Amino acid sequence: MKAIRYIKNTLHYLDQRFLPHREIWRECRTIKCGYRAIKELRVRGAPLIGVFAAYSLCVSLDSLPSDKQRFYTALADAIAYLESARPTAVNLVWALRRIEKTAAANGSLSLNRIKKAIRSEARAIHAEDAVLCGRIAEHGVRLVGKGDRILTHCNTGFLATGGDGTALAVIGMAHRLYADITVYAGETRPLLQGSRLTAWELMKRGIRCFLITDNMAASLMRDGQIDKVFVGADRIAANGDTANKIGTYGLAVAASYHRVPFYVAAPSSTFDPSLESGDGIPIEQRDGDEVRTVCGKVRIAPAGVPVCNPAFDITPSRLITAIICDRGIITPPYKKHIKEVFQSGFDM
Amino acid sequence: MKAIRYIKNTLHYLDQRFLPHREIWRECRTIKCGYRAIKELRVRGAPLIGVFAAYSLCVSLDSLPSDKQRFYTALADAIAYLESARPTAVNLVWALRRIEKTAAANGSLSLNRIKKAIRSEARAIHAEDAVLCGRIAEHGVRLVGKGDRILTHCNTGFLATGGDGTALAVIGMAHRLYADITVYAGETRPLLQGSRLTAWELMKRGIRCFLITDNMAASLMRDGQIDKVFVGADRIAANGDTANKIGTYGLAVAASYHRVPFYVAAPSSTFDPSLESGDGIPIEQRDGDEVRTVCGKVRIAPAGVPVCNPAFDITPSRLITAIICDRGIITPPYKKHIKEVFQSGFDM
Repeated sequence: MKAIRYIKNTLHYLDQRFLPHREIWRECRTIKCGYRAIKELRVRGAPLIGVFAAYSLCVSLDSLPSDKQRFYTALADAIAYLESARPTAVNLVWALRRIEKTAAANGSLSLNRIKKAIRSEARAIHAEDAVLCGRIAEHGVRLVGKGDRILTHCNTGFLATGGDGTALAVIGMAHRLYADITVYAGETRPLLQGSRLTAWELMKRGIRCFLITDNMAASLMRDGQIDKVFVGADRIAANGDTANKIGTYGLAVAASYHRVPFYVAAPSSTFDPSLESGDGIPIEQRDGDEVRTVCGKVRIAPAGVPVCNPAFDITPSRLITAIICDRGIITPPYKKHIKEVFQSGFDM
Repeated sequence: MKAIRYIKNTLHYLDQRFLPHREIWRECRTIKCGYRAIKELRVRGAPLIGVFAAYSLCVSLDSLPSDKQRFYTALADAIAYLESARPTAVNLVWALRRIEKTAAANGSLSLNRIKKAIRSEARAIHAEDAVLCGRIAEHGVRLVGKGDRILTHCNTGFLATGGDGTALAVIGMAHRLYADITVYAGETRPLLQGSRLTAWELMKRGIRCFLITDNMAASLMRDGQIDKVFVGADRIAANGDTANKIGTYGLAVAASYHRVPFYVAAPSSTFDPSLESGDGIPIEQRDGDEVRTVCGKVRIAPAGVPVCNPAFDITPSRLITAIICDRGIITPPYKKHIKEVFQSGFDM
């Protein structure tokens, strides 16, 4: 179960816009194609877009100038262009910075060796992300109990990462250990990652699940149907404030009101220690037609009605019971504990 | 602006399933057709389905047996059948009980005179509902301030009542008085009454509005974008607990957390003093394909994925700032104040 494949310097990706109906694999050959795939959410999920962006640089390296100085300028332009595809998830910036550093560190080598180093770094980013997913699952599973009924939002599985997932990897491991886990998947309007992707992944994994509209979650909590909430993250500030798919904040408020534990699962690459709080996280505003239509196919609102369409919201850390990271389970006070976890350095 | 028309004993209704794209008017000629229109949400909105059910009896009276005793039996059957179309909104039961009482009270008259009395009662129910909407608006507008940004859910306008609406009538009157009201309309998955109907009504009324997905509401409150929440109701228990469209409860929790006033607007016919609390309100469970698809047209989830699809939820009265009724504004303690408001009798 993979969402992208990088083999012999060709990059294949599952076009997630067509799930769950059709599994269409495409090939990405250029920076522009990589940008579009990220921008249009053909490939999505904070950790995965980092990996994918790094690979889309790799497949484009041979089309960059062969003069070394012009190569570096073009590479920097390509990185800046890819970074601009989606502003909220920090993993995109993080992965591309790693590529940039690798390129810089190997500046004395031949262009061929530099390209080789970049490709090797991209593969390392991918391999590490898969390892981080495994560690997140191992740490997070300690928070799941037998028979737990877990609410999740958006998609945080193998379609969102270079490995088994973040929140969904925790759920997957709990399922393998306990076998009696139930998942309530919020459909996640407007782009329906919950119904299109998570429900599909859960069924593929053989995990019992119920699909719900986002507005049913609070009522299920009131009825005592939800034991825990597990979500992913697109960026986590130094104080634990978390940007994640729109709707996450409302779930956190409802969970707090009903005393349901609320967990965020994310790899180290999702933390942004340069931001003191969530106030500094840029929120991507997307095209209003995503709200006025469903999957761009059915118009569900009057033409021209004004809409709001923030793709993310910020959940303040006081509403988060714990953050599950590859380095362990981080609990409040977050500022102190996040600092401690990352004192060994931000990059791995 | 009307959703149904009863002229010369023919009943026309706007088939709301096709809004906002097409305004298709249909004629209802039989009990069965009335049942289907209510069941399939061609006609919806708690007050409106009461009025519509009464009229659908009227247009069917001539097809009932001409023997008086058999007429009464058939009438009782028809009423029970119509009542079963949707279990949560009490207005349906309330309106049909009035028809039943009228029939019983006129038992000594000729069959023709009995039918005439029934038709007259249905028209009275309709006319009264329009009056109640006006009174709700007059009371409720006192709670709206200049420049208010109001969040609403589902549809509570002329498409939901026999008059100008409940919550939306309040908003409409505030708009006429202040002209600078902004409405955020939650799309209201799964059946999208917010995007299909409320956005359409607001644009028809010339009221500034923004359409949002339901999961954006809490985040807007956190950003200080929402001054007040106004919603309708399908049934209000003696203690003020309110059944309304799924998602209402989550909004009430979020409003309480952000100290945003949360108002329910409903006519007297929506109160059910026979129920001590919301626990006794039956919650309609609808077909799962409403969640698996959008408008029955686009499949958005894997085939066969289990779903939850409660059409309503219960908001406990402690989360409600005030209930706006045609008889005035009811504030806590609700049990005492609802009793006082209705001490003059439940029927008007």
